[in-house]
Amino acid sequence: MPLRELQYPTEPYSKVNRLKDRADYGLETIHQIVNSCPMLHVSFQPPNSPFPAVLPMIGQMGSFDRPSADLGEVLDLYLHGYVSSRIMNLTRNNNNKPQDSSSPSPPEGLPLTVAATHVDGLVLALTPNSHSYNYRSAVLFGHATLVTDPAEKLYAMELITNSVVPQRWPNTRLPPNAAEMQSTSILRVRISNGSAKVRTGGPHDERGDLEDEALLERVWTGVVPVYSAMGEPVAGGYNKVTEVPEYLEGWRKEANKDAEEYAREAVDKEVGKKVAA
Amino acid sequence: MPLRELQYPTEPYSKVNRLKDRADYGLETIHQIVNSCPMLHVSFQPPNSPFPAVLPMIGQMGSFDRPSADLGEVLDLYLHGYVSSRIMNLTRNNNNKPQDSSSPSPPEGLPLTVAATHVDGLVLALTPNSHSYNYRSAVLFGHATLVTDPAEKLYAMELITNSVVPQRWPNTRLPPNAAEMQSTSILRVRISNGSAKVRTGGPHDERGDLEDEALLERVWTGVVPVYSAMGEPVAGGYNKVTEVPEYLEGWRKEANKDAEEYAREAVDKEVGKKVAA
Repeated sequence: MPLRELQYPTEPYSKVNRLKDRADYGLETIHQIVNSCPMLHVSFQPPNSPFPAVLPMIGQMGSFDRPSADLGEVLDLYLHGYVSSRIMNLTRNNNNKPQDSSSPSPPEGLPLTVAATHVDGLVLALTPNSHSYNYRSAVLFGHATLVTDPAEKLYAMELITNSVVPQRWPNTRLPPNAAEMQSTSILRVRISNGSAKVRTGGPHDERGDLEDEALLERVWTGVVPVYSAMGEPVAGGYNKVTEVPEYLEGWRKEANKDAEEYAREAVDKEVGKKVAA
Repeated sequence: MPLRELQYPTEPYSKVNRLKDRADYGLETIHQIVNSCPMLHVSFQPPNSPFPAVLPMIGQMGSFDRPSADLGEVLDLYLHGYVSSRIMNLTRNNNNKPQDSSSPSPPEGLPLTVAATHVDGLVLALTPNSHSYNYRSAVLFGHATLVTDPAEKLYAMELITNSVVPQRWPNTRLPPNAAEMQSTSILRVRISNGSAKVRTGGPHDERGDLEDEALLERVWTGVVPVYSAMGEPVAGGYNKVTEVPEYLEGWRKEANKDAEEYAREAVDKEVGKKVAA
């Protein structure tokens, strides 16, 4: 881990132009938001389409070359998703040459934008215009290529499976067989840039409204914390394991507690303050 | 409401190409997913950028001309968001002529793709490859123009505010003053196309794994329901209303119950079955 937090360089397309005090270009903040998001939104411009494509996909940041790298280091994004045949085909066509970082030409691969967003609270102010959300939002820009090395593919499959439920991978039938390896497509996105935007805190209103005593006595102002919760696991039709295993149940309860606490504590944090890990 | 449910036409860019049994082109299903999503992901291709832009924005489907239209009818999408200066400028430049639906030329406005996704459950199978999510996902394609008519702007502001908390609009300081009307930008998206994809149900595994008795006795399979929850409201620093009002507290409890129930009941629904409203 470097002494100072690494930052993504700002480019015209990645710069936060409004409410700049909420912007954060730190790798750790951005990667943390992406890795804790159960669904990413991946956008690219298909040829001959009037509209960009947007696909919900599962993904996770990691480093195949240095699996022990932490969240503040340079990482790749690995993507997996069911609705990805178009993106996979486009990427396959762009996948002939390996990326050469010393070259001045643009990186190989399909240009992608990936967004990860958490809503953390409804911020209710005196006036409709001052209403807001507490949120954590990250965007990454990069170039996607298909992973072809079986070892890297396995690394990414394990990384992504364990991001859904920690320790799930070793608690399933392993290794994936030849048909499974064949049918699974994984994209590696080399990241060029990224940015995050974070809002925490309570409502803010204009001075004129804050001096209106009748208004203050009529309108409730504050924050409704919002978080993702997981209910009691429901066994499937062919399940034969009577007790929900501890790696799942222990994690579920811990994650529920953490999510609720983050949303509650975000209310008391200063706007623009760094996200906790 | 028409007798048969309206469907969006399928175009090459909007057609679901994989797992087609999960696809739904019905307006009601799609609009319901969009209107219940607290954050939309809006994508467009800026000129001179190597990457599409993706912005998290708040939005809601509605009809200014016929506010009583229900979710299964032709509606516009109204968008509002803080991070929207670029999109607003691009739209302003495309906003000179009103749309003429009798014209064969493409619609006026900036081409946009809007995605709305709910994660409803973690589907845990015997093998990593058979893992999945229960989810509801919708994508809309359309052309965005800036709303300039103050009456339509007010309609959209009310629609969007009440989508965050029902009845919030009449319980704030109204009407917005001239500065607020000036500083608020609302986009109206005329929808060309859309599609939804929905997964419900439990895990599915391959026959070979289902016949492996030792595997069945080792790996827990089933669904962990996932839903968005709202915690106890936290009063802001200048709040003077001691009790949380019933329109907020009653709705919060009801919405929490509904969200939890949807995720739980999705486990028992057949895959491909229609989403409940």
